[in-house]
Amino acid sequence: MDEVTQISAQITELAYALDTFYFLVMGALVMWMAAGFTMLESGLVRAKNTAEILTKNVGLYSIACIMYMLCGYSIMYPGDYTGGVFRSITTLGTGLLTSGDNAAEAVVASGGDTYYSNLSDFFFQVVFVATAMSIVSGAVAERMKLWAFLLFAVVLTGFIYPVQGFWKWGGGWLSDFDGTVRFLDFAGSGVVHMCGAAAALAGVLLLGARKGKYGPGGQVNAIPGCNLPLAALGTLILWLGWFGFNGGSELKVSDVGEANAVALVFVNTNMAAAGGLVFALILSRIWFGKADLTMALNGALAGLVAITAEPLTPEPLMATLIGAIGGVLVVISIVTLDKLRIDDPVGAISVHGVVGMWGLIAVCITNPDASLKWQLVGIISIFTWVFTMSFIVWFIIKLTLGMRVSEEEEYEGVDISECGLEAYPEFTAAE
Amino acid sequence: MDEVTQISAQITELAYALDTFYFLVMGALVMWMAAGFTMLESGLVRAKNTAEILTKNVGLYSIACIMYMLCGYSIMYPGDYTGGVFRSITTLGTGLLTSGDNAAEAVVASGGDTYYSNLSDFFFQVVFVATAMSIVSGAVAERMKLWAFLLFAVVLTGFIYPVQGFWKWGGGWLSDFDGTVRFLDFAGSGVVHMCGAAAALAGVLLLGARKGKYGPGGQVNAIPGCNLPLAALGTLILWLGWFGFNGGSELKVSDVGEANAVALVFVNTNMAAAGGLVFALILSRIWFGKADLTMALNGALAGLVAITAEPLTPEPLMATLIGAIGGVLVVISIVTLDKLRIDDPVGAISVHGVVGMWGLIAVCITNPDASLKWQLVGIISIFTWVFTMSFIVWFIIKLTLGMRVSEEEEYEGVDISECGLEAYPEFTAAE
Amino acid sequence: MDEVTQISAQITELAYALDTFYFLVMGALVMWMAAGFTMLESGLVRAKNTAEILTKNVGLYSIACIMYMLCGYSIMYPGDYTGGVFRSITTLGTGLLTSGDNAAEAVVASGGDTYYSNLSDFFFQVVFVATAMSIVSGAVAERMKLWAFLLFAVVLTGFIYPVQGFWKWGGGWLSDFDGTVRFLDFAGSGVVHMCGAAAALAGVLLLGARKGKYGPGGQVNAIPGCNLPLAALGTLILWLGWFGFNGGSELKVSDVGEANAVALVFVNTNMAAAGGLVFALILSRIWFGKADLTMALNGALAGLVAITAEPLTPEPLMATLIGAIGGVLVVISIVTLDKLRIDDPVGAISVHGVVGMWGLIAVCITNPDASLKWQLVGIISIFTWVFTMSFIVWFIIKLTLGMRVSEEEEYEGVDISECGLEAYPEFTAAE
Repeated sequence: MDEVTQISAQITELAYALDTFYFLVMGALVMWMAAGFTMLESGLVRAKNTAEILTKNVGLYSIACIMYMLCGYSIMYPGDYTGGVFRSITTLGTGLLTSGDNAAEAVVASGGDTYYSNLSDFFFQVVFVATAMSIVSGAVAERMKLWAFLLFAVVLTGFIYPVQGFWKWGGGWLSDFDGTVRFLDFAGSGVVHMCGAAAALAGVLLLGARKGKYGPGGQVNAIPGCNLPLAALGTLILWLGWFGFNGGSELKVSDVGEANAVALVFVNTNMAAAGGLVFALILSRIWFGKADLTMALNGALAGLVAITAEPLTPEPLMATLIGAIGGVLVVISIVTLDKLRIDDPVGAISVHGVVGMWGLIAVCITNPDASLKWQLVGIISIFTWVFTMSFIVWFIIKLTLGMRVSEEEEYEGVDISECGLEAYPEFTAAE
Repeated sequence: MDEVTQISAQITELAYALDTFYFLVMGALVMWMAAGFTMLESGLVRAKNTAEILTKNVGLYSIACIMYMLCGYSIMYPGDYTGGVFRSITTLGTGLLTSGDNAAEAVVASGGDTYYSNLSDFFFQVVFVATAMSIVSGAVAERMKLWAFLLFAVVLTGFIYPVQGFWKWGGGWLSDFDGTVRFLDFAGSGVVHMCGAAAALAGVLLLGARKGKYGPGGQVNAIPGCNLPLAALGTLILWLGWFGFNGGSELKVSDVGEANAVALVFVNTNMAAAGGLVFALILSRIWFGKADLTMALNGALAGLVAITAEPLTPEPLMATLIGAIGGVLVVISIVTLDKLRIDDPVGAISVHGVVGMWGLIAVCITNPDASLKWQLVGIISIFTWVFTMSFIVWFIIKLTLGMRVSEEEEYEGVDISECGLEAYPEFTAAE
Repeated sequence: MDEVTQISAQITELAYALDTFYFLVMGALVMWMAAGFTMLESGLVRAKNTAEILTKNVGLYSIACIMYMLCGYSIMYPGDYTGGVFRSITTLGTGLLTSGDNAAEAVVASGGDTYYSNLSDFFFQVVFVATAMSIVSGAVAERMKLWAFLLFAVVLTGFIYPVQGFWKWGGGWLSDFDGTVRFLDFAGSGVVHMCGAAAALAGVLLLGARKGKYGPGGQVNAIPGCNLPLAALGTLILWLGWFGFNGGSELKVSDVGEANAVALVFVNTNMAAAGGLVFALILSRIWFGKADLTMALNGALAGLVAITAEPLTPEPLMATLIGAIGGVLVVISIVTLDKLRIDDPVGAISVHGVVGMWGLIAVCITNPDASLKWQLVGIISIFTWVFTMSFIVWFIIKLTLGMRVSEEEEYEGVDISECGLEAYPEFTAAE
């Protein structure tokens, strides 16, 4: 009997180890998405603004990690719903993390209810907040001041994102905190992607379009990206990273049902991306007469965003279709935003915002627990919170630091003025 | 006693979870090979054809996933040898997958004989078929129509590949379906790599060489790739992905013997690539007088292809030598194909076809179960099937859509004519 | 009772499988660092020297694998402290590996003391030695002969590195071989990073600076890298790979305590990189007036190097600070080395050497077992061994093969003279 108890404890520990390891591997894949956004965005801007977009991307990732450790994580996961929201600011988030990790005895005593390291959870969450902020950098590219952007990153990752994250995932009013199903968002079509897009939209509206993007009489000038292999690489990195993003959001893998669920999430994530790419490619061929690579890439990303709200209930064929509709929507949205003179150099608002909303609504198609009402409540409340708060913060930055580089700096490229170097000093010398 | 039964069931479930997770991680690494081929090929073509090769690569991956879901998977794994081959076309492959995933009770009852999620198997298989198709895109680069290529991808991934895949891995006549050892191909030197190369060869023969590649009197003109860092990156991505390709093909990791086997596969895969690279580098230094980077990269890939047929029986030193011979062969083969005026811009036919055959024959060196006769039967039958079917399909495409862009489009670059954009609009403006 | 024994054996096997799989995944991430160094260095050199630095990187990785298999591994891990150091040269390292992998019975009998495959250990170790050698290639870039470099790689990876690796990790005089704590270096701030930097420094001193780097009167000319997106990509690859580098160095994950430890290592590794990046970026902004991207990237790498010696005892906030100090040090060191006219094109000596020392000393801050005396003994002895041996080897190479390309070759770029091709033939044609 004693021996059996000991064996049972060993199994519980082993399952905890597997779930923690799974969580860390999935988190590493999400961290890798930082490289995806970095490559995607640096491929889609002009050469003269490349070093700055690189700096923004690596800078925001680092800031996100630090701010989320300092206060974001404890705002988002205060432990209990009432009170305690800001408690970790005093402990700097850290004593909480390490001294609070689970003792083996407690894990065994929980009988498997405690099934992963708190630190692995922190790691997984911290790379999510970085993802949300990465969405912003592309939309405001080629004309925003570097330090204005990084300052905004401090606020978004340390406060704006965690608050709405708490609403859904930390036990707040959008979660099923009392056992009632409310807003459903499996891995963050809303909490992460639409959140990033809402912050980006607020920034773009205050920032204005790039010089030369829109001409008189509704004219839209294409400003092609300077390095499409990097954009394709970035998309494929994001595709890979998304297996971690969605696959890790199942949170557990250590029994047959959970392992099957993670496998289904992997398959559906992959199929939705494939569907989005193919349909965006076909639509661009029909509409524009050419197989527009950048639309195809955004189509794949749209498929990924679309399936993120619910990758677990669709059959793979349905996942493909949900992604395909995302791919169609993203092409329409990119064209429409340009008509509205909302200048988003990489299409981030369309991919993450418009398609994020589609993904949240599409939950109702396959998940019988979802209600359209709660999905809309979630969309509206998250969008309103993030957009309003971001607008305020951007506006304060605009009034103080200033948001936008000078016209001359924009013409010369922000690399020289902000970073003091060029991304490709030898390739563009002829110009 | 009841408690012991329950514990035993928990262990079976945990092992199932570990094997499924391992399968998914390995599959994600193979998916990453799509980025490897994309970078490799975009690095080895000229700037003016780069956007199109990117579009082909992301497009074929997506098409492969969709076609394999719709019909390929059920053709390749019909469940039983007689009948049922086409059954999943009616169910669209999907009901089969999800409703058919393993119940916990059935897994436990199987005593561990059912040890991974069906969906994880689908995920692993679907990235394999994409790999096979990726091989084709490089060989036909810089002169083929985009939509002709994508149409071929539909047929190869939905039908031609799955049929021969069934022969070996689905219980067909090349497999040891009745317990007799026949054709041995651990992870697909033949089923995946030589298959892709055979389809590519058929395409290249019907397509002809790029304008300017071959001059009068046996003259061969080098057409250098435009971005070698991307080619090197692609090779290293493939190297990493190959740990999943070969390591995952062990299918199981959850006991000491299996874990050791996966570790040996990792080591041998790595050593074979290293051997191939070093020997191709040395040979190119001796033969051409220079340390030809592109030959070294193809040497590493050749080492990887060579070990893929049998990464489990060689000692690491032998794996290094098998890879090294692959590296030597690939240099000889690339030079020879150019003499035969078979124009393969990236060397894919040599890497995956010629060295794939070498890998299949090399199984006999270290695996006492292998017979040269069955290895040759496998090589000849797979090659004949894929080459013949591909030739027919390419030929029909040639007669209908047309395979090749116009001479003017080829001169201007297919990026403009097919995709309506340039991959590097700022770097090549001076030309 | 028998049933219980059998179940207990199953659990031991399952834990062994999990630990081996974890080791292999971590090793694959470290292998991926080879791509990181390759991209980083190719981004920071000029276009005309790019193909050669790519060749060096893929070549050194392959050579490291082969040499470590042939003799390095058995020098570093001779099995017992006295005797046997060179025994595997006769067996070529290989029989040892495979025939010696653990039998299931022995694993079970060990009661879990034997917890991973020997081959998975070899795989993890072999990618470490490649990392050490990768550090050298950047420092000697743009002026060293390719084959001189590759010859040095043979000696460093086959002999110089393994000897000092043995001192610390193989049971040598710097390890706690008799239970006494001596020199502490968790994942290799000293054994890997400072080792690579010491070898690089010896090479740079004998090689001299690039033509035009230093002018009369203390003038330092910036020689900007040609492709900063690749440098950023390389940094992010290294960041990802470092989760394997540090995370895998825990060696075990299969119980609650170990899983928590690996999670903490992941978190601290990430936080240190973030701290290093942010502080290097801020310092460069204050000092140079611009947000220097290359300094920020080196700051992230410095953070990673700094935490490598001890990622397990700091709280995450302390890890951030240790990394931040690394980021500050690297900026100061890069500027200082240029004042000393030690020409290191990528800053490798600063990142891996200076900050490696900082990391080793910083162990004393958080690990109560560490002593400053032993940390200094370790630093001095490893540095002295590697620097002296490397100096001798480089010197012999200089006297025989010659180290440096001719002045004309350096002016034309080493790509043409060493590799016979150009990395970007179309982008730099205008020059």
